[in-house]
Parts: sequence; structure tokens; C-alpha cells
Amino acid sequence: MTVLPVNRLDLEGDVAALTAALLDIESVSGNEASIADAVESALRALGRLEVVRDGDTVMARTNLGRSERVILAGHLDTVPLPSVPGSRGTVPSSWEGEVLYGRGATDMKGGVAVQLALAAQLAEPTRDVTYIFYDHEEVDAALSGLGRVARSYPEWLKADFAILLEPTDGTVEGGCNGTMRFQARTTGKAAHSARAWMGENAIHGAAEILVRLRDHEPATVRVEGLDYRESLNAVRISGGTAGNVIPDAAMVEINYRFAPDKDLAQAEAYVRNLLEGFDLVVTDASAGARPGLDRPAAASFVAAVGAEPKPKYGWTDVARFSALGVPAVNFGPGDALLAHSDNEHVEAEAIRGCLRALRTWLD
Amino acid sequence: MTVLPVNRLDLEGDVAALTAALLDIESVSGNEASIADAVESALRALGRLEVVRDGDTVMARTNLGRSERVILAGHLDTVPLPSVPGSRGTVPSSWEGEVLYGRGATDMKGGVAVQLALAAQLAEPTRDVTYIFYDHEEVDAALSGLGRVARSYPEWLKADFAILLEPTDGTVEGGCNGTMRFQARTTGKAAHSARAWMGENAIHGAAEILVRLRDHEPATVRVEGLDYRESLNAVRISGGTAGNVIPDAAMVEINYRFAPDKDLAQAEAYVRNLLEGFDLVVTDASAGARPGLDRPAAASFVAAVGAEPKPKYGWTDVARFSALGVPAVNFGPGDALLAHSDNEHVEAEAIRGCLRALRTWLD
Repeated sequence: MTVLPVNRLDLEGDVAALTAALLDIESVSGNEASIADAVESALRALGRLEVVRDGDTVMARTNLGRSERVILAGHLDTVPLPSVPGSRGTVPSSWEGEVLYGRGATDMKGGVAVQLALAAQLAEPTRDVTYIFYDHEEVDAALSGLGRVARSYPEWLKADFAILLEPTDGTVEGGCNGTMRFQARTTGKAAHSARAWMGENAIHGAAEILVRLRDHEPATVRVEGLDYRESLNAVRISGGTAGNVIPDAAMVEINYRFAPDKDLAQAEAYVRNLLEGFDLVVTDASAGARPGLDRPAAASFVAAVGAEPKPKYGWTDVARFSALGVPAVNFGPGDALLAHSDNEHVEAEAIRGCLRALRTWLD
Repeated sequence: MTVLPVNRLDLEGDVAALTAALLDIESVSGNEASIADAVESALRALGRLEVVRDGDTVMARTNLGRSERVILAGHLDTVPLPSVPGSRGTVPSSWEGEVLYGRGATDMKGGVAVQLALAAQLAEPTRDVTYIFYDHEEVDAALSGLGRVARSYPEWLKADFAILLEPTDGTVEGGCNGTMRFQARTTGKAAHSARAWMGENAIHGAAEILVRLRDHEPATVRVEGLDYRESLNAVRISGGTAGNVIPDAAMVEINYRFAPDKDLAQAEAYVRNLLEGFDLVVTDASAGARPGLDRPAAASFVAAVGAEPKPKYGWTDVARFSALGVPAVNFGPGDALLAHSDNEHVEAEAIRGCLRALRTWLD
């Protein structure tokens, strides 16, 4: 489907209507040019922000000399459109009463609309604000526009606090668990299965790995007042070559989601200890992020929102801010469980409520 | 490599030289026409056998009115030529002293040469003899020329005893183990691995299957004086869809090699009992064969050969004879462990010794 670029976004009107306008610009990862054009021109039209465009990432900031600076960040891309005919989480968007359907309705054009509305509506914010709209979030982490900003424009990521407007149903979700993947390999000796005693079964050799994973009781770890629930799972297994051959190799892929009290080395050591005696290789690792809710800017934000903060389980880009020394939380409209679903949708009032909370805090 | 058909096989000379001549006719499964032509014309030239050709299977028999009839059976095809350059288990054959190298040297052109030599050299055998040379043994069992004979020419498989000239290093190997394959499937509930507690891990659910297989101690079962060693193994395992998803399905493929004291139903019940509580599907099953060494013809043959008979572990076509009510053994030149190997070979004296033993018994 080809959607014509929307040249004018109305940043002053209803933020839910603005969300619908953003949804109507198809922006599956890799195809963010049109939406980035629309965002860039809307921000430049405001006339009072410093605006930079890099690829399909758009950055804008106030320079009011405030004592604190806050980053509001969101990604412009979406996952692919649903393939099931009749799905409503698609382009163009559609309304059912006060519920807005479309690809990106929760993840995360409602949040992007709130960023844009704040940029237009906060003439004199109490804190300097940096707005970041980035590309390629829904694909390989190495492609992320936010990573490119960190490499090419590190001064744009200097701040006292960052809010990522990913969907959290209007609560504040602090920090995130880390994630690490391992491959555990067992080896044996191939033989014809009619003479099995000539060989050594590598799949049988993996039984103990599965038993230890199955019997492992994952911890819940309190970090700065939030309870992070861990998990440790076999996510893939393979082994064997033919129906009449004793397998000489098997592989178990393991995913450990660990609380942000641990760094990568500690997380790795934990799994190596649990699976002592087996050959483990780390294939993928991303550190978690501490919630940072003890920092003043974070504390005042949590107080302004008024709801009890929760831990974030999935890895999100708050970890990138955390790694740069900027405490960060997720706070945005919509239910994260609807993200990527065929009938992705968001309630108009959730978007408006998010805007109100942030405007109250920053005005 | 193209090898010209050998029009004349010398059945009266050295049986090892005859083996070399057969090896030089490439006959990978599906390409048996040339060797079947050579065998058919050599048998017809003898002038005293009833000869039938069906596809690339050739059958010949004496009709001397003896009180007993013996089948001597062997397959004409080989597995593909070795792909490793310099391998000697190929076409054409080659000699190193008294050792003959070539594809099929052990499996089983030495045995086929012995059949042909006996057909030529036994003018007045003490038992009527049926010679069967069949195609497509080394591929899917459904393609086997011997199966076709059983369907189309059942009267050709009536006999008191059958000898399959598969390589046994000159000993008599009686009967064979049966083989049965199962798929054991576990199911769970998919979830994002960051919220693993929302799901149920099907790979962890397979841990108990592997533990029971690993800890199972296979039996050795004495049947008619021979000890059949059983085995039970996971031969393949798979599960999981992505590195961040709790797997909702896993599958373990299991191969049970069981002694011929059990029929298929008993073998299946044994595994179902061991893996009680798991979803098992039988995907493949072939009954074993009792050795039948208590029958008179078999006993006299064993006595003539003089060596202690052994059990056969791998499934072979003796099971087809067994299913037809014909006791059958394996007896042929060459080491079965060299079958299909890149440097497949056989000692000339092993072939000559096999011929001597059978001629002594039948002359």
C-alpha cells in the first residue's frame, strides 16, 4: 500500500487525532522516510527548537538554560503490517468509538504523538527538553537509529533523565532486565543405532542440562525498590542426523533474563555455575538497566504521575540510556501486550492522559 | 564414470576374480540393469536352471525333486560411490595383494559371486537350490526387489531354509533384531521469554523423556540359543522457534532395536510403558526374525560351517523370509563394519572360504 506523505501534522489539536494521522503514514522498519519528513517539518515549523535530521532520525531540543534536561524518546518505525485479512492493526487506521486501531497504535505512535504535542504546547517548559524520534527500532539492535545517535551525536544524549514513550498503560516502568543467550553443546560418538553400544548418545548427554533448567527456580530481585522477576529457559534444542544413527552432537540454546543488579559478567557466571560441566558459549548479551528512581528528576516525575512504578521485564532502549549514565524509564500510552498484534489498538483517552501527565510535570 | 556391460562372467574360475568382475559393473541402486543383464545371461548360458527376470531382479532354480529346498539370496545394488577423492571403495575395483577394493566389495558382491559360482559348479546339489539376485536393497525398503518377488512370485520364496549372503565374516548370523521408531511430543504454551512465567516450556517438558532414555538399561535376550542385545535411543530432537520465545512444542525421535522374542505389539508396549505419560506415535516398524536354528536344514548348515553362530543386530532381509515362514540366516564373506565405507574391501580368501563351505554342504 502506498500512502502519500502527510505534509502537515496538526500538533495543537487532539493528540489522539494526531496519533491517527501518524498511523496513516506507513512506516514499517526501513520505510521511515515519509514519517520522518512529516515530523521534521512539523518541528521546524514551530520555529523555537534546534532541529537535526540524521537519516530517518529527527532530534529537536529547547535551549532555555534550565538546570535540568529531560529526554523524551520514541521510535518512528513499526513491525510489518498484519498478514491476516481483516486485521485492524494495519494502515490506514480506523476508529471504533474512542478506540484507535492501526499498526503502531500501541507501539508506539501514541507516544510519538505525545512527544510532538509537548514540543508544540510547551513554550516554556520547567526543564530543557530533548525530543528524539528514531528509526529502525523493531529490527536488529545494530541498526537502531538511537544507537547511531549515541555514536554520532553523543552530546544530544546528555541529560539528567530520559523517558521512553513505549507503551506501559500509563504507569512508570523503571529500568529493565538484561538478556543473555548461550549455546550449550554436548558431543558423543556416532554409531549405527543397531549397534548403539559402539557409540555415545549426545542427546542423552543433554538430559542433565534440561533437568537443571527445568528444576531451576528463578529469583525475583529487588533493585531500588522494584522487584525484577528473572527467568532461565531452554528456547531451542536440536540434535541428531538420521533415524538410524546414534547422535554425536546436540545443542540447547538458553536464554537468561536477569535483574539489573547483575552486570554481564555476573549473569554469565551465574549460568556457568548452574550448568557446570557443560560446554557453554555466549552468543548474545545485553545488560539490563537499573531503574534510577532515586535520582531527583526521576523521583519528581514519578511523584507527578502519581502511580506506583513497576519494573520492566523486557529489554528496551532504556538500557541504552542507562549505559550512557542517564536514568531512564518507560512511560507511554497503550497496553504492551497488544504491541505487534494483528488488532493492535489504543484508547484515545490513554494518549490524552499521558500527554496531560507529562505537560503537568514539565509546565 | 561409464563402465561397459560385461557380457561374459567366468563362473568356473576363481570366485575372487569373479567378484572383481562384478565390482567393475557400477550398480548403485537404480542402476542395476547392466549387472542384472550379465547375471541373467551367465545363468541362462548354464542351460540347466529355470531362469526368470523381473525388472532388475534375476531368479534361477534347480528342479531336481530333492526333499528340501534352500534359497541363496543376495542384492545386486550398492550404495553410491565414495565422494572423497582417492577412496578405493569405488569403481573400478583394485587389488592390493590378496585384498580386493571396490564399491560393494563387502556389501555384497563377494556373496553374489559365491551364488553364481555355486550355480555353475553344483551340477547335482543335495538340496534343490533357488538363487535370487535382487535390486534396490540399499534404499527405501518399499523399493526392494525382494519385496516385489514376495508379492509377484510368492512360489519362488517357498523353501525350507534361506541363506542371505550379506557379509558376516564367514560366521553364521541368525535372525535379526526388530526396529521401531517413535516420535514423542511435548507441548507447552508460547510466551515472550522476558515474561517466561506466562508460558510453559515444552523443551523443559522433554527433560523427563531424555532422563528415562538415558537411565534405561537395555536388555540382552536369549532366543533359540543366541543372545540379542537390545538398544533404545533418542536419535533426533528438535524444539523451539526463536531465541526470545518460550517453546510450545518439542519432539524426540526414538529408535528401539528389540530382540526377536518380541513382536511389534510387544515392542511398542514396552516403550509406551517406559515413557508412560508422554504422547508417543509410532512412525516406522519392522519386526525382527527368530534365528530358526532349531530347524533341520538350518542345523545341518550350521554343523557344516562348523563355527559358532552369532546373533545379527541390524535389521536385514532375513526378516522378510522369517515373515514368510522360512527360517533364514546371514552368511557371507567380508566384515560388515566395512560396508558402505570409503575404502570398502574384502580378502580374496574370505570369498573362497565361503564358497567352499556352501559347496561342501550342498554337494
